[in-house]
Amino acid sequence: MPGPSQRVRLALDAMGGDYGPQETVKGAIEAAKGGDVEVLLVGDPAALQAELEKHRVAALPVKVVPAEGVIQEGEHPVQALRQKPRASIVVAAGLVKQGAAQGFVTMGSTGAAMAAAALTFGLMEGIERPALGGPIIGLAPRTVIIDLGSSVDCRPSQLVSFAALGSAFAKTFLGVEQPRVALLSVGAEEGKGNRQAKETYELLKASGQNFVGNVEGHDLPLGRADVVVCDGFVGNILMKLTEGLGEGLAQHLRSRLGGRPADAEAVAQEVYDLLNAVERAGGGPLLGVKGVAVVGHGRSRAPAVASALHTAMLAVQLRFVEKMYQELAALRRPDAP
Amino acid sequence: MPGPSQRVRLALDAMGGDYGPQETVKGAIEAAKGGDVEVLLVGDPAALQAELEKHRVAALPVKVVPAEGVIQEGEHPVQALRQKPRASIVVAAGLVKQGAAQGFVTMGSTGAAMAAAALTFGLMEGIERPALGGPIIGLAPRTVIIDLGSSVDCRPSQLVSFAALGSAFAKTFLGVEQPRVALLSVGAEEGKGNRQAKETYELLKASGQNFVGNVEGHDLPLGRADVVVCDGFVGNILMKLTEGLGEGLAQHLRSRLGGRPADAEAVAQEVYDLLNAVERAGGGPLLGVKGVAVVGHGRSRAPAVASALHTAMLAVQLRFVEKMYQELAALRRPDAP
Repeated sequence: MPGPSQRVRLALDAMGGDYGPQETVKGAIEAAKGGDVEVLLVGDPAALQAELEKHRVAALPVKVVPAEGVIQEGEHPVQALRQKPRASIVVAAGLVKQGAAQGFVTMGSTGAAMAAAALTFGLMEGIERPALGGPIIGLAPRTVIIDLGSSVDCRPSQLVSFAALGSAFAKTFLGVEQPRVALLSVGAEEGKGNRQAKETYELLKASGQNFVGNVEGHDLPLGRADVVVCDGFVGNILMKLTEGLGEGLAQHLRSRLGGRPADAEAVAQEVYDLLNAVERAGGGPLLGVKGVAVVGHGRSRAPAVASALHTAMLAVQLRFVEKMYQELAALRRPDAP
Repeated sequence: MPGPSQRVRLALDAMGGDYGPQETVKGAIEAAKGGDVEVLLVGDPAALQAELEKHRVAALPVKVVPAEGVIQEGEHPVQALRQKPRASIVVAAGLVKQGAAQGFVTMGSTGAAMAAAALTFGLMEGIERPALGGPIIGLAPRTVIIDLGSSVDCRPSQLVSFAALGSAFAKTFLGVEQPRVALLSVGAEEGKGNRQAKETYELLKASGQNFVGNVEGHDLPLGRADVVVCDGFVGNILMKLTEGLGEGLAQHLRSRLGGRPADAEAVAQEVYDLLNAVERAGGGPLLGVKGVAVVGHGRSRAPAVASALHTAMLAVQLRFVEKMYQELAALRRPDAP
């Protein structure tokens, strides 16, 4: 059993998300009970103290770090960061920068988290914005799709960087030794696709990644690749479509099966889960930033918050940031010397 | 009841598709039995005659028109058209051009059908390639998504043309009087999306179409719009993903439910159908070409062939080509005088 010295210390933006600070504090306590993490709850001290007092936490490694204000989902991230330099997400990122925490976790605005991470940690070479990626389809829970919406209008070289980041993800979190990297396109053969895909194909072939060619939409649920690279415009639409289909089908099955079999509800939930891998994952790490930052779903309740903290803990323990550096450094780029 | 003079005469590329000429001939006979269509079976006369002799067709309006060769799925459409000027798809399109038929139907290569239709009929103003569109998600069987893969790398003005073609589709085949047109993007608000989406948003606002703004991936199954416009790269990936998810889930439910309830197979099929509207539709009309051309799935068996012929019949009877002209002509384009 790891002793306190091996504990991972994480900063949690306790004000972010639809249910902060109630559920974030609860989730932090859940995670801290595991014994492997210490949590710095970042936010309004009075509100956080009030939440803590609802639970028996005297012996747990959970501390409050004061911050002022929170950046909301609708705000322009970079502007908001400037206007609220003491906002919870900014303070949480700063704690990591100062070495007081090893990573931060938020259920708040993804845009604000990306901006805070990029500004505070910095971006890795060749990365223009933090990328988002991970398994999104429950039928293929080990297929990492990247990017899921942070970058639209990607140049082909960005997609090659995504391949490296996706490989680091698959190696670190899924234990895949030599991830098969594929490019999402509209035909299996080389030369199929839009301009972006055609150019990216050439670069991926030369990249030194384990590139297995194009995959199409119907290949995604089959898990034919470990990493599927696409522009964030496409990835975001795919992710949200899958989510919407899961909700629609689960609803249909609930009324359709109506108790026959007795586990109809379980069947409906299963179908939902077979489409959506996102919520189960409990937050995804921001990719391509020089530090550990995990963003969870805004709708997260305590168990999902705990799960996001767990993801951040793994990222620290498994040296995820180092692995991203390594994969990016190993890329062969035709335009490089 | 319509007399023989009101019958619609259609040319069927009887050699195309995975199961031509057996299933195409069978499908043609099925359709002709309905009394509303005459079918010209285009292809190898000996093979077609042999198929016809398996059925009692003496009284039916089904005739053979000779052609030589067939264009396969893998061939380059335009090259193949040049090399095989007597191929079944070319002859079928020619019959329409000459006035011997009012539309053509094929289960063969979509690329070849598009090339044959474009070269033989010509394209409408502002259209660069025949477009593909229609309902693709069974949960939203009245939402037309366009384009589904014929054009990638679309300029914004092409997407505006798709809006007009999609509206013509919704008005003609779905009876929607004033179709709500939406743009597929990664956020609901104006200004969200890639460059293409942002520019298209502006054009659609000014187009005179009933533009209701952006929709996201999770909106697609909800039927929030009658026409959803997107680049063929995105549309094709969405269509194939939905198809793949349907297959994966149906397979899962078959083994999961295993006879409980007794109609487990029906439930699995239902789930498949809730995802896939494409196969039920029995072939989609090519959009933006100056004539009726319907392309069915390569896997089509006789009922799907009959259904594709029915779609072509409706396109003729409901004056679909005229409606596409009208919608395109009514577009307001900022760059036009």
